Amino acid sequence: MTGLRQIGEFGLIELIRQLEEEASYRLEMARLGGRAPQGRLRAAGLSGAVMGIGDDAAVLPGRPGFHTLLTVDTLVEGVHFLRPKISPADLGARALAVNVSDIAAMGGYPTFAVVSLAIPESLEVEWLEELYRGLLAEGTTWGVQVVGGDTVRAGEFSLTVALLGEVEEGRAVLRRGARPGERIAVTGTLGDSAAGLELLLRESGAPALDPEVRARLLARHFTPRPRVPEGRDLGAGIATAMIDVSDGIATDLRHLCSESGVGARIYADRLPLSPDLRAAAAALGLDPVSLALSGGEDYELLFTAPEEKLRPTLAGGTPVTVIGEVVEADRGLSLVREDGRSTPLPHGYRHF
Amino acid sequence: MTGLRQIGEFGLIELIRQLEEEASYRLEMARLGGRAPQGRLRAAGLSGAVMGIGDDAAVLPGRPGFHTLLTVDTLVEGVHFLRPKISPADLGARALAVNVSDIAAMGGYPTFAVVSLAIPESLEVEWLEELYRGLLAEGTTWGVQVVGGDTVRAGEFSLTVALLGEVEEGRAVLRRGARPGERIAVTGTLGDSAAGLELLLRESGAPALDPEVRARLLARHFTPRPRVPEGRDLGAGIATAMIDVSDGIATDLRHLCSESGVGARIYADRLPLSPDLRAAAAALGLDPVSLALSGGEDYELLFTAPEEKLRPTLAGGTPVTVIGEVVEADRGLSLVREDGRSTPLPHGYRHF
Repeated sequence: MTGLRQIGEFGLIELIRQLEEEASYRLEMARLGGRAPQGRLRAAGLSGAVMGIGDDAAVLPGRPGFHTLLTVDTLVEGVHFLRPKISPADLGARALAVNVSDIAAMGGYPTFAVVSLAIPESLEVEWLEELYRGLLAEGTTWGVQVVGGDTVRAGEFSLTVALLGEVEEGRAVLRRGARPGERIAVTGTLGDSAAGLELLLRESGAPALDPEVRARLLARHFTPRPRVPEGRDLGAGIATAMIDVSDGIATDLRHLCSESGVGARIYADRLPLSPDLRAAAAALGLDPVSLALSGGEDYELLFTAPEEKLRPTLAGGTPVTVIGEVVEADRGLSLVREDGRSTPLPHGYRHF
Repeated sequence: MTGLRQIGEFGLIELIRQLEEEASYRLEMARLGGRAPQGRLRAAGLSGAVMGIGDDAAVLPGRPGFHTLLTVDTLVEGVHFLRPKISPADLGARALAVNVSDIAAMGGYPTFAVVSLAIPESLEVEWLEELYRGLLAEGTTWGVQVVGGDTVRAGEFSLTVALLGEVEEGRAVLRRGARPGERIAVTGTLGDSAAGLELLLRESGAPALDPEVRARLLARHFTPRPRVPEGRDLGAGIATAMIDVSDGIATDLRHLCSESGVGARIYADRLPLSPDLRAAAAALGLDPVSLALSGGEDYELLFTAPEEKLRPTLAGGTPVTVIGEVVEADRGLSLVREDGRSTPLPHGYRHF
């Protein structure tokens, strides 16, 4: 028998993807052969997924002129959050926000959500109510109507949000469109959320750090702001490939490059690091570049674009920073350090 | 602070529903007032949910002539299944089937699914692969394309399926359409899955029971068959309200009546009990009527209809049995026993 650690998260995702593609092929063959699956009874005119597997969200047939987007994300206690360390309202908002970010990374906007709560019996009703209020308030911010779901008993608390979205036909930005010679860019700043998490996990904190800096970094960690308007801008003819930064760009750039069949060169001295991150890293004795590369949970948009299409800012004044360029696949993923040395890009967060 | 047991599963669902309805109202007001939520940037023509909360699936705007259906269900190890007792392929199939059943209960057919797996590190890859193969095979049966999802680390294994479906406009069967005087009916037989579970949980089994009966009841438990073609028939002008039997009709009829604002009278001697169930109940020393009422996981369709619309069988020859009638709300939910005595309908399975 094979352990998960042996194949790793990338291996598991690849296995699932292969199985899904085989099944999709069987389904398509049955459809073309007139052997409608039992119970399908499907009205004419519905086609298969435009792009299903291996992206931030699936791209499905939608109303005229649009594709429907569908994504799902689960947050598990002890893995994605520590219950005593985050307010229930922030946790609820976060559960929706990480899904909204997946829709943003396709160039779309979110529409409807369902929520499945797995609840230990010991949880208090007031805590759950605050969580749900936080989730719904985040929904109101992004125009998402929450339309039911499931509540089940469990040993550990987790919550799963499935989110629908829409994007105009031909405007969905996939992970697979990057081409050598294009620029690699990112919205906002990287590593702030990771620095917030470090501050949270160290009981002693960083006594020398300005409390306002600390508060801002914790806020970046607790209440990430999905880049919906920015993603809409990027989908209007700018980005050729896009992904949201959930596991750190070291991991997420790897996904994008693997889907596009390209390599990448990133410059450490071009990474957009906020003054807050630099101050916290200094106070904590950590490398700010490592936090920016491997920290994750920034929920910024990482994308590729031809140089002439790039703009310095997007909707709402959000800055865009070019951090590197797309290269041929056989050149792999490399990081050019501040001293000019080039090393393989380190790996970011992996679940297994 | 309030414990979950104090408000119960119905109380929790009611609380969540209230919060969702308040939020939907705020969203609608913002939309009508021209205060588009930040980031919505929504194309004209998209309206809110037709029917969101408190049904088997949400009814959303869809392609011309159709509504989109959306449902989500989580299965948790130790609550919904015991890992050593079910094969991974059956578990995967079951996770999809229970969602397909929710779509069937709306009168619709399923289309696309995403899957979120919460995985303890100790799980073997082969086990996960078999689970996924089972899930995909069930998808092929029902014409469902599985288009990605999420894999996360967790302490206990759970899997969440979010499933889309479609139904022709005006044909979605809600829980809320039942009217006094109508008949209450159910497809197939009740209690077989519960009997299968009892056989599974008793190490000694029921030695006197015919092994073939045992095998059939275990199959009813492990591999429920969602009633998609039957639900399509019932949605074509027969059923006025419908729900699938996941927690036992004692619980699910309560949901339907509560949504419709009606009461119900059920006759114990009309419940469709299979010879297998009767044999197993006798061998186990259990009451077959209790198994049929409170056992759950039958995934039959429970519906109401005017008497003149009823047919003895549906698609595929599936039998329909009238088990009672809809009454005024103030008469509550009652069970007429074999001896003619009327008692309040007992409660079925509750998570809290």
